[in-house]
Amino acid sequence: MPKVLIIMGSDSDLPVMKASCTFLEEMGLEYEVRISSAHRVPGKTADLAKNAAANGFGVIIAAAGMAAHLPGVIAAMTTLPVIGIPIRSEGPGGLDALYSIVQMPPGIPVATVAINGAKNAAILATQILAVANPELTQRLVDFKAKMAQEVEKKDQRLQEVGILAY
Amino acid sequence: MPKVLIIMGSDSDLPVMKASCTFLEEMGLEYEVRISSAHRVPGKTADLAKNAAANGFGVIIAAAGMAAHLPGVIAAMTTLPVIGIPIRSEGPGGLDALYSIVQMPPGIPVATVAINGAKNAAILATQILAVANPELTQRLVDFKAKMAQEVEKKDQRLQEVGILAY
Amino acid sequence: MPKVLIIMGSDSDLPVMKASCTFLEEMGLEYEVRISSAHRVPGKTADLAKNAAANGFGVIIAAAGMAAHLPGVIAAMTTLPVIGIPIRSEGPGGLDALYSIVQMPPGIPVATVAINGAKNAAILATQILAVANPELTQRLVDFKAKMAQEVEKKDQRLQEVGILAY
Amino acid sequence: MPKVLIIMGSDSDLPVMKASCTFLEEMGLEYEVRISSAHRVPGKTADLAKNAAANGFGVIIAAAGMAAHLPGVIAAMTTLPVIGIPIRSEGPGGLDALYSIVQMPPGIPVATVAINGAKNAAILATQILAVANPELTQRLVDFKAKMAQEVEKKDQRLQEVGILAY
Amino acid sequence: MPKVLIIMGSDSDLPVMKASCTFLEEMGLEYEVRISSAHRVPGKTADLAKNAAANGFGVIIAAAGMAAHLPGVIAAMTTLPVIGIPIRSEGPGGLDALYSIVQMPPGIPVATVAINGAKNAAILATQILAVANPELTQRLVDFKAKMAQEVEKKDQRLQEVGILAY
Amino acid sequence: MPKVLIIMGSDSDLPVMKASCTFLEEMGLEYEVRISSAHRVPGKTADLAKNAAANGFGVIIAAAGMAAHLPGVIAAMTTLPVIGIPIRSEGPGGLDALYSIVQMPPGIPVATVAINGAKNAAILATQILAVANPELTQRLVDFKAKMAQEVEKKDQRLQEVGILAY
Amino acid sequence: MPKVLIIMGSDSDLPVMKASCTFLEEMGLEYEVRISSAHRVPGKTADLAKNAAANGFGVIIAAAGMAAHLPGVIAAMTTLPVIGIPIRSEGPGGLDALYSIVQMPPGIPVATVAINGAKNAAILATQILAVANPELTQRLVDFKAKMAQEVEKKDQRLQEVGILAY
Amino acid sequence: MPKVLIIMGSDSDLPVMKASCTFLEEMGLEYEVRISSAHRVPGKTADLAKNAAANGFGVIIAAAGMAAHLPGVIAAMTTLPVIGIPIRSEGPGGLDALYSIVQMPPGIPVATVAINGAKNAAILATQILAVANPELTQRLVDFKAKMAQEVEKKDQRLQEVGILAY
Repeated sequence: MPKVLIIMGSDSDLPVMKASCTFLEEMGLEYEVRISSAHRVPGKTADLAKNAAANGFGVIIAAAGMAAHLPGVIAAMTTLPVIGIPIRSEGPGGLDALYSIVQMPPGIPVATVAINGAKNAAILATQILAVANPELTQRLVDFKAKMAQEVEKKDQRLQEVGILAY
Repeated sequence: MPKVLIIMGSDSDLPVMKASCTFLEEMGLEYEVRISSAHRVPGKTADLAKNAAANGFGVIIAAAGMAAHLPGVIAAMTTLPVIGIPIRSEGPGGLDALYSIVQMPPGIPVATVAINGAKNAAILATQILAVANPELTQRLVDFKAKMAQEVEKKDQRLQEVGILAY
Repeated sequence: MPKVLIIMGSDSDLPVMKASCTFLEEMGLEYEVRISSAHRVPGKTADLAKNAAANGFGVIIAAAGMAAHLPGVIAAMTTLPVIGIPIRSEGPGGLDALYSIVQMPPGIPVATVAINGAKNAAILATQILAVANPELTQRLVDFKAKMAQEVEKKDQRLQEVGILAY
Repeated sequence: MPKVLIIMGSDSDLPVMKASCTFLEEMGLEYEVRISSAHRVPGKTADLAKNAAANGFGVIIAAAGMAAHLPGVIAAMTTLPVIGIPIRSEGPGGLDALYSIVQMPPGIPVATVAINGAKNAAILATQILAVANPELTQRLVDFKAKMAQEVEKKDQRLQEVGILAY
Repeated sequence: MPKVLIIMGSDSDLPVMKASCTFLEEMGLEYEVRISSAHRVPGKTADLAKNAAANGFGVIIAAAGMAAHLPGVIAAMTTLPVIGIPIRSEGPGGLDALYSIVQMPPGIPVATVAINGAKNAAILATQILAVANPELTQRLVDFKAKMAQEVEKKDQRLQEVGILAY
Repeated sequence: MPKVLIIMGSDSDLPVMKASCTFLEEMGLEYEVRISSAHRVPGKTADLAKNAAANGFGVIIAAAGMAAHLPGVIAAMTTLPVIGIPIRSEGPGGLDALYSIVQMPPGIPVATVAINGAKNAAILATQILAVANPELTQRLVDFKAKMAQEVEKKDQRLQEVGILAY
Repeated sequence: MPKVLIIMGSDSDLPVMKASCTFLEEMGLEYEVRISSAHRVPGKTADLAKNAAANGFGVIIAAAGMAAHLPGVIAAMTTLPVIGIPIRSEGPGGLDALYSIVQMPPGIPVATVAINGAKNAAILATQILAVANPELTQRLVDFKAKMAQEVEKKDQRLQEVGILAY
Repeated sequence: MPKVLIIMGSDSDLPVMKASCTFLEEMGLEYEVRISSAHRVPGKTADLAKNAAANGFGVIIAAAGMAAHLPGVIAAMTTLPVIGIPIRSEGPGGLDALYSIVQMPPGIPVATVAINGAKNAAILATQILAVANPELTQRLVDFKAKMAQEVEKKDQRLQEVGILAY
């Protein structure tokens, strides 16, 4: 089973990114987390991207804020699918990072998720790896069922206790 | 090899979406194109999504404009990776569709590409299918090389004829 | 008298949504509050929407944040008027939810109110039910008069005590 | 059956607003169209709003662009539900009108539809009148079915002729 | 000397609006402060606006948030210059109020100042009254000189103590 | 009677600015139109602003696009009221000019009108001069009445010929 | 005298970028124009950037649209000052490119000019080279004087022929 | 070696601007910090700008918030390169200052850095002075290497302790 490579531009992104790790562990997927910057260590970033497939990775998750070039720069160096997470910072509310990640020009896509959407990035990575893996698909089916049950439980509790006591 | 399912919310999206088809054909991938609306034919949309995996699809591309719910509604009904294309319409320049697609809540990701990014959606679909397919990976490597050569040719021509004659 | 059905995408919307309940109680209207997600429990959401009219509801209020598909997805499944409340979350200041709710394509309207506008959603629901109900109209007339008196009282107090002591 | 009152701020809004009239005629609803400005003829606008209920109207549709006060100003003068249509003009792409209509303060809601969403405003008006009118509800059910058939036909044609010949 | 009429849509605007009062007092101008809402007490608002000139006011300052109709509604009812202050609220960062005030359609201008710009509104009101009043002009000249001196003092202190000790 | 000074940053603003001139002529006001740039001829701009009062001007209208500093730079050099018109250019739809004009810091207000709002700037200038001039006030009252009549005529014609023939 | 290196991400940027070349020629500066993409030919882009100083360049101008990574990617590979030009494309009006260029994280600045601001990029490049070159400074002083004269001439013509005949 | 002149519009910008000073000191560059406002002390600002070159400055850094005219106004008065820092304030999240600085019209560029990007402004100033100074270039090369090492260290620590203990 291919592993998931998680790269973040700065260790300030770690609190957001833990949600990616938690989900991958729930799914029983192997992953590595690296700190590497498109601008401060471009060579290292290029090496991580170029060697990812050979190192056993099947998907890359890249998170960055502001002028968030990291996911696009990685996508330029690999044919693996790259998932981009725009990290919210002060100022334009994360719209700077969103535009910098999602508006990639023709030829080099980045699969963009919501601002600070670390959990969804991990789910998407799992979905990608599950295309060729029925067992992993089953785990996603179970996860979806569990999510539905949680909503159901909350609604039941609401019906029982009412909106004021909830 | 799994096929690619392309769903668009309206036939007005067709001119943009042809770029997806062209690329998938270049890559030798099978695909189907459907018109189905999240709001006008919700049952049909749900059926397409629910049966996609069983019908041999490995990835879904969904395109929609305005309050673009189609990709998210499809993602709710399948564990296949869903790629969303925000279609630009008059008014907020496509930002309405972008937000409606990329800002999916935790649990149900949509892999969002650029506004009108139909070609990149197809490249991303190919990358996803290539994770488990070395031959398809090779075609992506060749495509990347061809893109690089085209930039190189343009630059060479510019060096030869100069900016005024280009 | 038809009842009002309130559906919210997540229990995190409850603090905002209490303002809807309070107003409906003031107007003497019956209502039910449900938690149901367009993406996590699409089947349940569809059932709530499809059966709403038969279950005695005359209007539906739906609240959601981020890529807020809930109101539109409900509107696709009923001919009852659906009122949508964009819930503000971090990031784009609620503009993501606003666009996802108000920019519905032709055919399936959602009656959108302000970001976090739970009270106004309830007033609008009451206005809709009052079209065929003169007594309810009278309660709205009284409510409008009371609002006017409150503004008047504040202004009188300001004239009496001055801006510094207010 | 109550009638629908359509008020637009300027005759430049007429081309957009015809879509409201067409739909109301399809539904067999009576309506009146008036030009009246919140700022240029505030007295006339107030009279139209205050007398609307007594004159047999059950819903008001109001359309305006730029600092679009018309729907809110009308809503201040009546307890009828008021539907607001933000009209797109040059500059901020209709976002000015959208904010001016949807962001109404607590107490005075406007049921806002999409930028230039004249057809949806008429559908919403019909839905509101249909709450107390099963026959009108049936017409809406038929309309929804017809919309679905049209999507179905387009998809069938696409399957028959393919994307290039469509 | 004409007086200044200050109208705010809600008493929640008072903390911002005190800056207007303070400046007008510094300039020795008479003013009245009223709470009146375009939507909750439209009749009172119209009366305040229509009678302002006859009551000895020369300029009106109006402040409101969200879909901020108050300044425009007042401007519709008077030929006095109306200064509008967009009040920042949660959500779109005051851009909703700014658009609702500044984007007035041809015929009915509102002299718009910055978001929460209560002091500047008062300065502008003074400038307007000073057009026909050389003594008031002199007070504005003195105010400008004082502002310049304050900047000068801060810069001198910075030169003396340095940036770290400032 | 004080005159109105109109300054625009570039002759490309002339087509928009003619609406200011037309209105001032209707009102019988004297005005001068100058081309002067805050950045290209800062000295000339400063001279125009500093000498405006002494040269018989009572109000200044300044129009500029992009990073529209002209109105603010003029306001820094005079105590006359300065009206700013944000000129729409390609790119951010005039929002760049709007922010550059309306968001003036405390101390130096600019009375901002709508994007490309040249007519409203002239109306506002007239209102300012009319504060001390009952005859000019009467002309504004007449103008308001004429505007109202024009709306009335349009509405009458619509009632007579219907929406299709209008 | 160091040369100026102009790099654009695509030959579609050429029409905008000619304004840079024209100005540099007026100033008598040597320059080279290259087409190179941060994503399609990352190696070539890195080589151009790394070798720029050794190849006699003193400043780099980089232009790109959408998720415009080119200027930042170049800045990561050199200590030369890098000037970034956001190129406007359809959709978010160039705001995507502006954010992707100007919001660079601490450590790697890009000197950003206006959307499509090719002429200003060349002026800025000249200003940078002129810091150590009094003769080039003189050419900039002359250019500024010529700009001022052109504004002066336009204003004189306007005074002579009036606004209607201009 | 030319010095760096830092001008800020208000002493409230000081906490942000210290990052500029710190970096310049690290690079061994001389600098002066001044408080001067484009609007409150336009004459002083003009003098600082006009005399900057003669006083031994090679680059100017100017910081301002809201309608941030300071950098552009300074650029109008000198041929030295001017670096602009948009300072974030409440309301539009710094987008007002960004537009007011970056969207300078043709002829007068401002080298704009990120919102609150004081450190990057200082790096850019150093890069500009380093064009003609190999020793300063070496310090920038060393700084870049140090930045890379810091990223490397963080990544090593992450590999050693893992994401939970980091």
